[in-house]
Amino acid sequence: MLHDAGTEVIVCARRPEIAEQINERHENTQYLPGITLPEGLRATADPAEALDGADLVVLAVPCQTLRENLHAWRPLLPGDAVLVSLMKGIELGTGRRMSEVIAEVTDAPADRIAVVCGPNLAREIAAGQPGAAVAACVDERTAQRIQAACMTSYFRIYTNTDVVGCELGGAVKNVIALCVGIAVGLGFGDSTRALLMTRGLAEIARLGAALGADEHTFAGLAGLGDLVGTCSSPLSRNRTFGENLGRGMTLEETIAVTKQTAEGVKSSEAVLELARKHNVEMPITEVVAAVMHHGMSIAEAASLLMSRSPKPERYGV
Amino acid sequence: MLHDAGTEVIVCARRPEIAEQINERHENTQYLPGITLPEGLRATADPAEALDGADLVVLAVPCQTLRENLHAWRPLLPGDAVLVSLMKGIELGTGRRMSEVIAEVTDAPADRIAVVCGPNLAREIAAGQPGAAVAACVDERTAQRIQAACMTSYFRIYTNTDVVGCELGGAVKNVIALCVGIAVGLGFGDSTRALLMTRGLAEIARLGAALGADEHTFAGLAGLGDLVGTCSSPLSRNRTFGENLGRGMTLEETIAVTKQTAEGVKSSEAVLELARKHNVEMPITEVVAAVMHHGMSIAEAASLLMSRSPKPERYGV
Repeated sequence: MLHDAGTEVIVCARRPEIAEQINERHENTQYLPGITLPEGLRATADPAEALDGADLVVLAVPCQTLRENLHAWRPLLPGDAVLVSLMKGIELGTGRRMSEVIAEVTDAPADRIAVVCGPNLAREIAAGQPGAAVAACVDERTAQRIQAACMTSYFRIYTNTDVVGCELGGAVKNVIALCVGIAVGLGFGDSTRALLMTRGLAEIARLGAALGADEHTFAGLAGLGDLVGTCSSPLSRNRTFGENLGRGMTLEETIAVTKQTAEGVKSSEAVLELARKHNVEMPITEVVAAVMHHGMSIAEAASLLMSRSPKPERYGV
Repeated sequence: MLHDAGTEVIVCARRPEIAEQINERHENTQYLPGITLPEGLRATADPAEALDGADLVVLAVPCQTLRENLHAWRPLLPGDAVLVSLMKGIELGTGRRMSEVIAEVTDAPADRIAVVCGPNLAREIAAGQPGAAVAACVDERTAQRIQAACMTSYFRIYTNTDVVGCELGGAVKNVIALCVGIAVGLGFGDSTRALLMTRGLAEIARLGAALGADEHTFAGLAGLGDLVGTCSSPLSRNRTFGENLGRGMTLEETIAVTKQTAEGVKSSEAVLELARKHNVEMPITEVVAAVMHHGMSIAEAASLLMSRSPKPERYGV
């Protein structure tokens, strides 16, 4: 997308064979088989080469490995580069959002740290289907730089200054997607899915409000948008993980058949820790964490959720 | 659902043969074939019988026929009944929401007029799948009465006092669902759908703010929830209508194959009138109305939407 927008891009792959494939066959057979990548897109497995002279450093690694990876890359980061996080998760143990980890490890000021979130399934965006994302930075001008670097005829970027809200939306939605997946696996349809997504967003908004986010962000691309994209798609890893559980696989079997990370499994505990620390009710996150980490059965989780006391639609904000 | 919650229910059908079927075969073969209705559920084609002594009068007729129907029923309405609208649309010509039409025709005070909205696909709810809706009335106690009358182990009702927001969410979502349907018909996937739903909600929220609604309502069951339910479901009439257009049917062919009303087709013009009157930008509604009523091609509509100037995520509120 950056390449199509006229921005020079160099991809840094962990494995040399992936970089080689991208350079020579213009394909990533592991993660995007069948999609022809632009010829001008270069790849390398050498972080020093990738980072040399970069204006924008776009970070996309599993959340729980960011701190360690970033420590290794730190000496190679150009001093004035904007660091853009595409990651969606909360660091276990510290409860830190990814932009907070970036700030801690690199000492970059807030106006050089941004996040990009949105309902973007790699395969669809790579095929040029219409899509959109939000670029968030406390400094609107930095968000606008990213907007200019990414916007194409098939992809729109909207700016936002609420970094906290955008990151939380992205992180917590994986937890809700697990729950929606379970419902789908149990054979429930669109009404149940819509219920879980809406009430899921309500609890994300409660947590966000407690952490100083702008509630409106959760009705945007990083909240609702990302949640809808993830929960509707059979391509989503978190949804698929939940679906397997809902169909009756054990947790161990589900983990065994899952190729890539389902961020929500780990995030559920981290999000719940945050919620408890701030006294926020997150009933869906609570049962997801209990199912993933404390042996709660799915039947028990469903019955707990449906038997809560009658409530007004908006509370605890 | 009301019946399962222990509330006595009498259904008023327009056609006597439908009422007879419900009473004798406990089935509605026209609209819910294959679903066995509760034996205790009675039906009649006589409005006087249906309305006699009713505490709650639940109104569900095509929006553009409400005024006329209600005029006929008016002498039969019990003086203290709560009038509950399930309808989602705006009256053409007047721009009135359904609760406004009810107030005008019946002179009922606002604390006896309520709306129930939510992501509820009849077939799924009838099958007892977990679902939820919002009951809205300016008087919270009336909303709570409806909550008590409807809530079951499989269905949750949340209360809200923002009638305007709930009704607008329900009405405008049909217009957005048409657009999502077109995108699906064109072969686009979840990223495009999520984009249209999110930006659709953003324009609903702009209109709502101009009309005095609480913006937060649009992130709830009547906004986002209903939109997600409608846009994800192949059972949704509005989505299906759009899908047929996206696949290349002409407007005339699409209308011909559509059995029930696709409210969004008519609503798009009514919503656009409202938006223009209040100076609200509604780009998606605008192209939908142009496609439905002014011969705009789908290609032109898509290109208009994707070539708008770069924007912050939240504006015009």
